[in-house]
Amino acid sequence: MAHVGDFKAGEDDGEKNLAAWLLGIKTLQILPYNLPPLGPHDVKVRIKALGICGSDVHHFKTMRCANFIVKKPMVIGHECAGIIEEVGSEVKSLAVGDRVALEPGISCQRCNLCREGRYNLCPEMKFFGSPPTNGSLANKVVHPANLCFKLPDNVSLEEGAMCEPLSVGVHACRRAGVGPETNVLIMGGGPIGLVTLLAARAFGAPRIVIVDVDDCRLSIAKSLGADEIVQVSTNIQDVGEEVMKIQNAMGSLIDVSFDCVGFNKTMSTALSATAAGGKVCLIGLAQSEMNIPLTPAAAREVDVIGIFRYRNTWPLCIEFLRTGKIDVKPLITHRFGFSQKDIEAAFQTSAGGGNAIKVMFNL
Amino acid sequence: MAHVGDFKAGEDDGEKNLAAWLLGIKTLQILPYNLPPLGPHDVKVRIKALGICGSDVHHFKTMRCANFIVKKPMVIGHECAGIIEEVGSEVKSLAVGDRVALEPGISCQRCNLCREGRYNLCPEMKFFGSPPTNGSLANKVVHPANLCFKLPDNVSLEEGAMCEPLSVGVHACRRAGVGPETNVLIMGGGPIGLVTLLAARAFGAPRIVIVDVDDCRLSIAKSLGADEIVQVSTNIQDVGEEVMKIQNAMGSLIDVSFDCVGFNKTMSTALSATAAGGKVCLIGLAQSEMNIPLTPAAAREVDVIGIFRYRNTWPLCIEFLRTGKIDVKPLITHRFGFSQKDIEAAFQTSAGGGNAIKVMFNL
Amino acid sequence: MAHVGDFKAGEDDGEKNLAAWLLGIKTLQILPYNLPPLGPHDVKVRIKALGICGSDVHHFKTMRCANFIVKKPMVIGHECAGIIEEVGSEVKSLAVGDRVALEPGISCQRCNLCREGRYNLCPEMKFFGSPPTNGSLANKVVHPANLCFKLPDNVSLEEGAMCEPLSVGVHACRRAGVGPETNVLIMGGGPIGLVTLLAARAFGAPRIVIVDVDDCRLSIAKSLGADEIVQVSTNIQDVGEEVMKIQNAMGSLIDVSFDCVGFNKTMSTALSATAAGGKVCLIGLAQSEMNIPLTPAAAREVDVIGIFRYRNTWPLCIEFLRTGKIDVKPLITHRFGFSQKDIEAAFQTSAGGGNAIKVMFNL
Amino acid sequence: MAHVGDFKAGEDDGEKNLAAWLLGIKTLQILPYNLPPLGPHDVKVRIKALGICGSDVHHFKTMRCANFIVKKPMVIGHECAGIIEEVGSEVKSLAVGDRVALEPGISCQRCNLCREGRYNLCPEMKFFGSPPTNGSLANKVVHPANLCFKLPDNVSLEEGAMCEPLSVGVHACRRAGVGPETNVLIMGGGPIGLVTLLAARAFGAPRIVIVDVDDCRLSIAKSLGADEIVQVSTNIQDVGEEVMKIQNAMGSLIDVSFDCVGFNKTMSTALSATAAGGKVCLIGLAQSEMNIPLTPAAAREVDVIGIFRYRNTWPLCIEFLRTGKIDVKPLITHRFGFSQKDIEAAFQTSAGGGNAIKVMFNL
Repeated sequence: MAHVGDFKAGEDDGEKNLAAWLLGIKTLQILPYNLPPLGPHDVKVRIKALGICGSDVHHFKTMRCANFIVKKPMVIGHECAGIIEEVGSEVKSLAVGDRVALEPGISCQRCNLCREGRYNLCPEMKFFGSPPTNGSLANKVVHPANLCFKLPDNVSLEEGAMCEPLSVGVHACRRAGVGPETNVLIMGGGPIGLVTLLAARAFGAPRIVIVDVDDCRLSIAKSLGADEIVQVSTNIQDVGEEVMKIQNAMGSLIDVSFDCVGFNKTMSTALSATAAGGKVCLIGLAQSEMNIPLTPAAAREVDVIGIFRYRNTWPLCIEFLRTGKIDVKPLITHRFGFSQKDIEAAFQTSAGGGNAIKVMFNL
Repeated sequence: MAHVGDFKAGEDDGEKNLAAWLLGIKTLQILPYNLPPLGPHDVKVRIKALGICGSDVHHFKTMRCANFIVKKPMVIGHECAGIIEEVGSEVKSLAVGDRVALEPGISCQRCNLCREGRYNLCPEMKFFGSPPTNGSLANKVVHPANLCFKLPDNVSLEEGAMCEPLSVGVHACRRAGVGPETNVLIMGGGPIGLVTLLAARAFGAPRIVIVDVDDCRLSIAKSLGADEIVQVSTNIQDVGEEVMKIQNAMGSLIDVSFDCVGFNKTMSTALSATAAGGKVCLIGLAQSEMNIPLTPAAAREVDVIGIFRYRNTWPLCIEFLRTGKIDVKPLITHRFGFSQKDIEAAFQTSAGGGNAIKVMFNL
Repeated sequence: MAHVGDFKAGEDDGEKNLAAWLLGIKTLQILPYNLPPLGPHDVKVRIKALGICGSDVHHFKTMRCANFIVKKPMVIGHECAGIIEEVGSEVKSLAVGDRVALEPGISCQRCNLCREGRYNLCPEMKFFGSPPTNGSLANKVVHPANLCFKLPDNVSLEEGAMCEPLSVGVHACRRAGVGPETNVLIMGGGPIGLVTLLAARAFGAPRIVIVDVDDCRLSIAKSLGADEIVQVSTNIQDVGEEVMKIQNAMGSLIDVSFDCVGFNKTMSTALSATAAGGKVCLIGLAQSEMNIPLTPAAAREVDVIGIFRYRNTWPLCIEFLRTGKIDVKPLITHRFGFSQKDIEAAFQTSAGGGNAIKVMFNL
Repeated sequence: MAHVGDFKAGEDDGEKNLAAWLLGIKTLQILPYNLPPLGPHDVKVRIKALGICGSDVHHFKTMRCANFIVKKPMVIGHECAGIIEEVGSEVKSLAVGDRVALEPGISCQRCNLCREGRYNLCPEMKFFGSPPTNGSLANKVVHPANLCFKLPDNVSLEEGAMCEPLSVGVHACRRAGVGPETNVLIMGGGPIGLVTLLAARAFGAPRIVIVDVDDCRLSIAKSLGADEIVQVSTNIQDVGEEVMKIQNAMGSLIDVSFDCVGFNKTMSTALSATAAGGKVCLIGLAQSEMNIPLTPAAAREVDVIGIFRYRNTWPLCIEFLRTGKIDVKPLITHRFGFSQKDIEAAFQTSAGGGNAIKVMFNL
C-alpha cells in the first residue's frame, strides 16, 4: 500500500505527477512518478501545503535519520494537506473537493500493537518519506481515506499541514497526562518545543516554563504563551544552579517535564527539576547514548515516558485549530513554491538553523 | 512520633530495652534506650525477628546510604516482626499477644502526596533506621497500630520480617502492571532480584528470565522458579550479544524488565531487551549517574518506571505467604541471636558478599 | 476531632461563639457553643461566608439526608470560608489573618481507603454538618490546617465557600476523565449541574449540552457557557425522542454524561445517549431505587461511575477561580446575614425551589 | 469480507461444503454453501470443534438475540477451532495443517474505535453467526489469518473452541482489573459464570464466592475452584439477608462483583454486596430494563462496568490452557457429531436447561 509509486515509466499520462526526489546527500530533484492505483478505501489527494520537518532535513543532509537509512531515490516530505481529487468506491466520509490534512503513517492494522490501539509502534508501518516509503512532497498522493481528515472552513491548508508536528506535542501531552493540574517544564524552544508548549496550554496546563540557550527562541516561546522563560548555558556544570532557577521560575512543583532536545544536559535538567511522583517525557532524540542522573530521579518515582510519533491525534488537532485554542500560524516563518529552485532554497533555509521555525511549501 | 527514643538516661526501668546502636563506621553496640510514650493509636511490640537489608549494610560500612547520612548514634534495622505487648487506648484492631509484621515508615498523612495515596514519597517520612530516625533492631518499639499487620498462624515471625523486602518486589510489580500477560526480565539475582522474581510469579507473570554474573545466584533463582537463567559478563561491550541471548531465552517479547542492580550495563541491557511499548523498572540504585542508550528505548515508547520503597503492600505480602503463593523461607540463609558478638558477626556475614542472601536475627 | 463542640455550658468566655443549631424539622436556632481545644496541627477560623447546600436543606426539612439522620441538635452548614484567628503549635503553612476556604471532611488517615488516597470513602469521616458531626454555620470553628486552603487576593471569601460545591464537579470530571477530547452531556441545570458545567469547561470539554425541564435554569446554563441547551419533559415516554434531540444538539458522539439529578428518566436518558465506550457519571441522588435500561448501555461498554463528594480538589478549584477559568459569582443569587431572622429566611429561600441557585450567608 | 458465503448455486465443486443453516424458529438444516474466495491475508480452516453458546440458542429459539434479528437463512455457531487447509499469499504466521482457534469477529480496523484498540465496539463488526453474518458450524470457513491462533500440542481443538466463551471471562477480568488483591463475587453459575470463575482464578483472585439458585451448578462451581458457594432464592425480598450471607462467605471486602445473569435481583445483590470503591461488572444480559438500587452503590463509588464480548484475548486464553492455569475440559458435558440428527439433538440439549454446561460438536 504505497502512496506514491515508482519513477514514472513511459508516456506522460496527462496528469501532473511531479515529486521532490531525494537522490543523494543534499540532492533533491523534481521528477515525475507513477501514481499507484486507487483502492476502494483510498482517496487521491492534490497536495497543496507541506512543511519541512527536522527528520526531512536529516534525510536531506545525511541520507539517514536514527535507524532509517535512504538506500534508493525517495520522495521526501510528510507534513501535508491537500484537496480530494478522487475517492475510492467504498469511501463515504469524504468527497471530491474536500480539504484534508493527512496523517502520514499507514499501519498494518493486523498486528498485536495495532489491535491494541498502539498503532504508532506497528513494526510494518509505512510512513511518508521514511525510507523506503515515498513521501508526499508531490503533486498528488493516494492515501487511505481514514487517514485524511476534513478541515473546517476556518482552518487553512497550511494549518492542516501543521497538524503533523502538532500531533507530536498532543501525543506527548496525552501520554504524560497533562491537564489543568499539571505544571509543565519544556526543555527546548525549537519547533517541537513550541508545538509541545501549544499543546500543553490547550490541555489546560496552568503554568508552563520553557528553557533554551537561544534568547530569540525564548522570546518566540514567550509570545506564544509560555508563563516564564529561562535561558541556560550549554555547560553541563551549570545544571544544579539552572535547576534552581527553573524551579523558582515555576514557583511550584514541576509535575511533567518534556525534553524536546535530547542532550545529556537537557535530560539531566529535566530529571533533576521534576517533582517526586512526576514524569519526564523524552521527545527530542539528539543523543542516542545518554549520561544522566537517572537513579536519583527514579528513587523519587519520577517516570521517564518515551514518545514515538503519535496516534489518533488529527481530530483533536483540528478541533484545537478550529476553536482557536491553538494558533499555529506564528510558527510558519518561511514559504516556498514547488520549483527546483524553491525546494533547494527551502531545504537550505530549514537546515540553516537561523530563525526559521517552520518552512512551508505551497504547491 | 519516634519508635525508639534516645539513649536511656538514669535508672533501669525494669524493662529490657536494648538496641543495636550504630556509633561509627563498622561500629555497632548494644546499649539501652528509652522507649517513647505509647500514643492512643500506637502499640508496643516486642521485636522477635529482624533481617539485615543492603541499606543497613551501607549505613554500617559508610555511615550513609544515598542521600541519608548518619550524623549521630542511631539504632539500625527495619525489616522486622514481633509480638504485641501493649496497645494504645484507641486501638481496636490488635490485641496483646498478636504476632505482627511491621511496616517501617511513618508518613505525615497530611501532605498532598499522603492524601493522594503516594505516601511512600512523603517528604516527612520517618523510617526505621533511616537517619535520623532510630531503627528496630531493639527489644521493643512503639509503632502506629495501623502499620502493624497481624500474621496468620501459618506465617512465622521470620517470614513476617521478610514482608519488608518482599514489599519492594510487590510495589515494583504493581507499578509495572505485571499480570498473567507480562513476560518479565529480571536483571540481578541478589535479594531484591529474588523477591522481585517471587512477586512477579505471584502476580501471574507467565515467563520470567533472570540474569546475573554469578552462577550461584542464578541457580538459586532457578530453584525459586525462574523459567530461564542467563549468565552475563561485566563487560559493557557484551550488551548487544547478551540481549540476543536473553531474548532467545524468553522466546517471546519482553514486556517488563526490572533492573534490580542499577549499573550502566544492567540498565543498558534492560532498555535494549524490552519490547516496544514495554516498561523498564529501575529498582537497584548502584550508580547515581548512568550512561545508557535511553533514546532508542524511548523511541519505542519503552517507559522507565522509578521505584521508591512501597506503599500498602503488607496485606498482600501476608496473603501471598499465607496461601503459599510465595515462599520466602529459602531466602533466609543465616541466623543470629541478639548479643554483641552476634550483631558483629551478622553484619560481617551480610557485608561479606558471599553466599548470604538474607541474614536474620532472632531476638 | 470535632470542629464545633457541644452547647456551651456555663459562663460566656468573652468570645462570640454562636452557631445555627438544627433542633428539629425546620427548626433552626442561633445558640452559643463551646469551641474545642486547638490541636498542634489545627487552626481556629472565623467563618465569614457560608453557602447552603441541597443536603443542608434536606436535613432542615426532614432531619435526614440519604442514610444520615439527625438524632440530636446539630450545627448546620459546610460550604464555608473564613479568616484564620489562631494557629496550632505545629502549623507552618498558615498564619493569623490568612483568608482560607475549608474542606469540610476530616478523614481518619489510618484506614486502607485513606492510605490509598480515596479518603472521601473513609468510613470514619467526620464531615461538617453531616450527623452527628457539627457543621460550620458558626462564628468560629477549629479545623485541621491542612484542610484550610489559602485564598489568593483576587478570590473572595464567598468564592472560597463556593469551592465546596465546585469540588463535586471537579471530582466528577476527574473520575470521568474529562479533557479536551470529551463531549459532555449534563442532565440537570440545578446548582450541581451548573458547577459540573463550569468544571467540565475548565477541564477543556470542547462541547457541552445541558438538559433540564426548566427554561429558566437552561437560560442560566446557556449564559454560563453551555454550547447547547435542550428542554425536556418529565414524561418517561419521551426518552427515545429526547435522546435524539440531545444527540443532534451535540452533533457528535457523547463521550461522558453527568446525571446531576438522579431520576429514572434522567439516568435513562444519559445511558441511552452516551456513545459506545463512554461513561455515565451519577452525581444526583434523587432516587435510591432506579428503573433504567442499564443492560443495553453495558453492552456498549458504557460504564457507570459513582461519585461521593470529592478528594484533593481545593487547590485546583482555587486555581480555576484565581485564573478566571471559572467564575462562580453568577451562581450566588441570594445573600443573608447571620441573625435568627436571616437564617430562617435563607433556608426558606433555598428550600423554596424558586430561582435561587446559591444562597450565601455573610457572617 | 464474509467467512461463509451464500447457499451454493449449481454443481458440487468436489469440496465438502456443508453448514448448519438456521431457516426459522427451531429449524436448522444442513445444506451446502459457497465458500468465499481466499484473500491474501486469509486462511481456509476446516472446522473440527464447535461449542453452542447461549446466544446461538436464543437465535435458534426466537430468531433473535438482543438487537440482532435473523431475517434470512444464516449459518449458526461461532465458538470454534479447526485445521488450516490453505493460506493466502501474504500469510506468514500460519501453515497448512496448523491447528487453530478462531476469534469470530472481523472488525473494520478503520474506524476510531478500532484504531483506539476497542475494536469489539466497532459498529461494522462482522461476527460469525450474528445476523446477517454467517456463522461457523460448517465444514470450512475462510477467515483472516490474524484471527486464527495456533494451538500448542497440549491443547485440543475442543479446548481451542472454548477460548471463545473463556474470552468473555478474561475480558471481564481485565476490564475490572482483577488481580491478586481482588476478592471476587460471581452471580450465576452458568457457563459464563463458570468461565469468569476460571478466569478470575487465573488472574490471581485470592478469594472467589459464587452464588446461584441451583445447587447442582453450585457444586460444579465448587469443584472448579470456588472458595465458597452461596445458594439464594429467586425472591427479590431476600436480597438484604443474602447480601449478608455472601459477605460472610467472603469474610473480607468484596472488591469486584460479576453479574453473569443480569436480573434485577442478581444486579441488586451485586451492587449492595460490593465494597466502597469497588466495581460491579455486568456480563449477563437477561433483562434489558432493570430495577436496581444504583444510587446507594454509586454513592460508595462502586462503578458499573459494561462488557461486550472481548478483544485481544485469544493469546492469553491459549496460554492459560497450555500452562494448565485453566482447565476448561470439565465444562464440556455433551458431544455431538455433524449430522442433521445430531444438530437437532445438540440444540435441544443445550436449550433444555438441564445439566448441560457446554455442548460441543465434533465435525
